[in-house]
Amino acid sequence: MSRRNLSPAELFDAACAGDRAALARVLSLLERGDVVAREVGRMAYTRGGHGYTVGITGAPGAGKSTLTSAVIKHLRSMQLEIAVLAIDPSSPFTGGAILGDRVRMQDHATDPGVFIRSMATRGHLGGLSLSTPEAIRMLDAVGREWILVETVGVGQVEVEIAGKADTTVVVLNPGWGDSVQANKAGLMEIADIFVINKADRKGVEETRRDIEQMLELSDLAHDAWRPPIIATIGNTGEGVVTLWDAVLEHRASIEATGELQKRRDFRLREELREIVARRLELRAREICTGEQWETLQDGVLARSIDPWSAADQMLKGVGA
Amino acid sequence: MSRRNLSPAELFDAACAGDRAALARVLSLLERGDVVAREVGRMAYTRGGHGYTVGITGAPGAGKSTLTSAVIKHLRSMQLEIAVLAIDPSSPFTGGAILGDRVRMQDHATDPGVFIRSMATRGHLGGLSLSTPEAIRMLDAVGREWILVETVGVGQVEVEIAGKADTTVVVLNPGWGDSVQANKAGLMEIADIFVINKADRKGVEETRRDIEQMLELSDLAHDAWRPPIIATIGNTGEGVVTLWDAVLEHRASIEATGELQKRRDFRLREELREIVARRLELRAREICTGEQWETLQDGVLARSIDPWSAADQMLKGVGA
Repeated sequence: MSRRNLSPAELFDAACAGDRAALARVLSLLERGDVVAREVGRMAYTRGGHGYTVGITGAPGAGKSTLTSAVIKHLRSMQLEIAVLAIDPSSPFTGGAILGDRVRMQDHATDPGVFIRSMATRGHLGGLSLSTPEAIRMLDAVGREWILVETVGVGQVEVEIAGKADTTVVVLNPGWGDSVQANKAGLMEIADIFVINKADRKGVEETRRDIEQMLELSDLAHDAWRPPIIATIGNTGEGVVTLWDAVLEHRASIEATGELQKRRDFRLREELREIVARRLELRAREICTGEQWETLQDGVLARSIDPWSAADQMLKGVGA
Repeated sequence: MSRRNLSPAELFDAACAGDRAALARVLSLLERGDVVAREVGRMAYTRGGHGYTVGITGAPGAGKSTLTSAVIKHLRSMQLEIAVLAIDPSSPFTGGAILGDRVRMQDHATDPGVFIRSMATRGHLGGLSLSTPEAIRMLDAVGREWILVETVGVGQVEVEIAGKADTTVVVLNPGWGDSVQANKAGLMEIADIFVINKADRKGVEETRRDIEQMLELSDLAHDAWRPPIIATIGNTGEGVVTLWDAVLEHRASIEATGELQKRRDFRLREELREIVARRLELRAREICTGEQWETLQDGVLARSIDPWSAADQMLKGVGA
């Protein structure tokens, strides 16, 4: 049966029944961000609500993929069904690497209990910030109970997305390389759990002290949940059980305090606001065509009118 | 004289007359992204047009700041007046590093011929993609002829911004560490010049071959300008003169072919479209308050209405 001939609704039903190829197709439809995507999104919206997302983030080279792979192995040893969403351009999952690369995750490629999906960092009309929650909702809707989201912890949009998981794991390395400087403050803000990966290297204790010092200086230390700091070695799997126990503990904590529901509600409100904004952006693209637009653009290029005044003129008709 | 009491117009005039503190204040006004910012932006828009921007980008840890510092030194030895805009969260300029850090650029902090400005990655209503060109235009308007823009080459927004300089220098290291995997494809697209920095390390020739191979596979190799590959050692300044000569050569090339004007026109058109979109977004934020919005949000949270239908209802009023 060719899945290309199935309607979005049929594809969605097939995906819910466990058809992986159908799920892949549905996610591709979602990524288009168009009218069909919206139809598919609506179907996912009414289902689900059981999935739990764990974000794994950190600087490029921190060993996120290797660690994710070790976490997958641990979860599979408990027969849990999982999905992995890789929106890290440096991840072997995403195919971001052009030259020969160690594809660490290939181990899991043939395991039906693991569904791996990489997200393009471009293409979706709303960008990553809208396509990620939609993809997560879909994976939830088809019944994946654990959804791991691997993101690179550098960049405005990326750190924001990384902070939107139910539990966010920030992966660092001993010695805090140059690369860790990148958005250190941003990463501190979103961490529920710190991991010092590659803990067979020198400097684990200094790094632990650094993190603890930064925690003391921040608000995090005084919240109901104080982020633990866990040493791991992704390559050998050392520390991964402890890490997962911390994830479970964090989940239990935010479920008990009502923090989980608060976070999810907040994210949904944000997403709704963003959907409105994107719709307006589409509207802007419609507005920004035609003769008046060309004339105004020429004026801006010739510096006879500034961009803000030009925008004013374009927007007169739409009450903005 | 307290600059706090000056009007935006007075501040702008003072900045144009060479008052650095006034320039700093004007840039802060711009970053607010509000009505005052628009007024300041308008003033800058009618002036300038002589400045040339050189983007310096690459993965965290590639040595961008050290290289930028070496470039500054070279330019200052020719008595050129420059501005540096650091929108790299890992740059010592931006103060992104919380723990003790080597502030490599402090050398230039007291040199009146160098104006250094770090950009917050948050705060501006339009985000980095709008605040960066505005800041560049201001630095141009007050007469800085060379504007160096240091950005981290990871992340959706950041790579887009890095690609918006007149000449874009992509900084890599021998051996392409893990960190370079990050957005390699994105960086390839925007490079006018490749630098292999830290060229005292092993692997320079392999890296050069890798880049050349990637160039062959891309369209870049067959354009009028083929990106050169230059080895540098930021710490000692080795190769920096060659790098700067390549920048001058690239500038001469795109000026001669008309490519520079084409790029600038294209960027301005993009920016104008973005301003229109942001204005609509502001309008959406106005709309997205009040009773109707609360009711719709509650419906979405209760899953009685999906976010897309809720957005439809909200947007009826603005023709979007």
